[in-house]
Amino acid sequence: MTTVTTTGFRAVPGFARGLVRDLRVRWAALEAGTDYTASIIAFEDRASPEYLAKHPFGQVPFARVGNAEVFESGAIVFAIGMKSLALLPGDQDRQIETLSWMFAALNTIEPPILTLFGLDVIHAEVAREPVYRDATLETIRNRLARLADHLEGREYLTGSFSAADVLMATTLRFLRFTDIVAEFPTLSAYVARCEGRPAFQQALADQEADYVAGEALAA
Amino acid sequence: MTTVTTTGFRAVPGFARGLVRDLRVRWAALEAGTDYTASIIAFEDRASPEYLAKHPFGQVPFARVGNAEVFESGAIVFAIGMKSLALLPGDQDRQIETLSWMFAALNTIEPPILTLFGLDVIHAEVAREPVYRDATLETIRNRLARLADHLEGREYLTGSFSAADVLMATTLRFLRFTDIVAEFPTLSAYVARCEGRPAFQQALADQEADYVAGEALAA
Repeated sequence: MTTVTTTGFRAVPGFARGLVRDLRVRWAALEAGTDYTASIIAFEDRASPEYLAKHPFGQVPFARVGNAEVFESGAIVFAIGMKSLALLPGDQDRQIETLSWMFAALNTIEPPILTLFGLDVIHAEVAREPVYRDATLETIRNRLARLADHLEGREYLTGSFSAADVLMATTLRFLRFTDIVAEFPTLSAYVARCEGRPAFQQALADQEADYVAGEALAA
Repeated sequence: MTTVTTTGFRAVPGFARGLVRDLRVRWAALEAGTDYTASIIAFEDRASPEYLAKHPFGQVPFARVGNAEVFESGAIVFAIGMKSLALLPGDQDRQIETLSWMFAALNTIEPPILTLFGLDVIHAEVAREPVYRDATLETIRNRLARLADHLEGREYLTGSFSAADVLMATTLRFLRFTDIVAEFPTLSAYVARCEGRPAFQQALADQEADYVAGEALAA
């Protein structure tokens, strides 16, 4: 069995709880039937020379999957998938179909969502800047409409559950501060289906338990 | 030899010339020593039912790599890399290192750059909205500083040229409407090194030739 270790933060602000991307690694490992270890770091340690030596951008997660050191949640989930048919088909052409959806999650769907998140959540204390926000909202709704079209009559992005769903469902969760996903019943049902998987529930509980342990340490 | 076909646009506005992501596919194919065919579509055809049946988000590029139908430039470049050691190492653990940098290009570096592009280029006609723009600039500079640290003493991201450089160099090109890359001499040199490769020069010339042919058609 492949071993997986991921970093995670000891504590994050409430708006980020349940969203930090080590959740993707925990979820993928559990879907693959792999135990994983979380190595918990303080938020400020992400910029330490030791951490930057592992992760060039000082982000969480940094992971080890077997012998490989990996950063970027998309690459980590793919690396776990290379070891498990529960996440990636064995056939190379079908792997590429899944990888198309993985990049779609992280390069087509996530960027405008994170722009909105930045405008409305992280910079919520400043006056709203409506023009770019409206354009961003339009981009999000257009892309989610396409995604909903694709998911119509499908349980998961590529038929059966895959690494692409780990990335897409967690990306859509970033919109929880809005009602946008609910505008697309197909997408609401898809997110609920993904979140209902035992491995997701376990991953979320594990991540939360690490925050609770961090709070106890800080108290 | 693997065959590669990619879609491209017949015409784009000046600000997008030399930036549309079929450039990545053309470049990767040429690095891999593969001839490719460009299937040129009108901009408005991207939303046609026929095109949406191929590319769920109606974007360019959509590609065929051997027998696989692929969308998202990151996935297409990886698919070409699976057939060529010029872009991806054969060893799985080393492939994952390259994939980390591919996702870093498209999920860490590109999103804030495209936000700035949206604010300054696409929505330049509206009043600038300075708060979010300043935050975006800070994010870009912080991430480019890390990237420059990594590239110090290295010619390419993972030692020798790879698929990750195709994505990273084309991502940095989006900043050509600013002087930000020039603030980091290591990055300027890196982009120049990538752009100096014969395959990049050929890919850019091919893409431009398709626009010139499109103009002739329209005239």
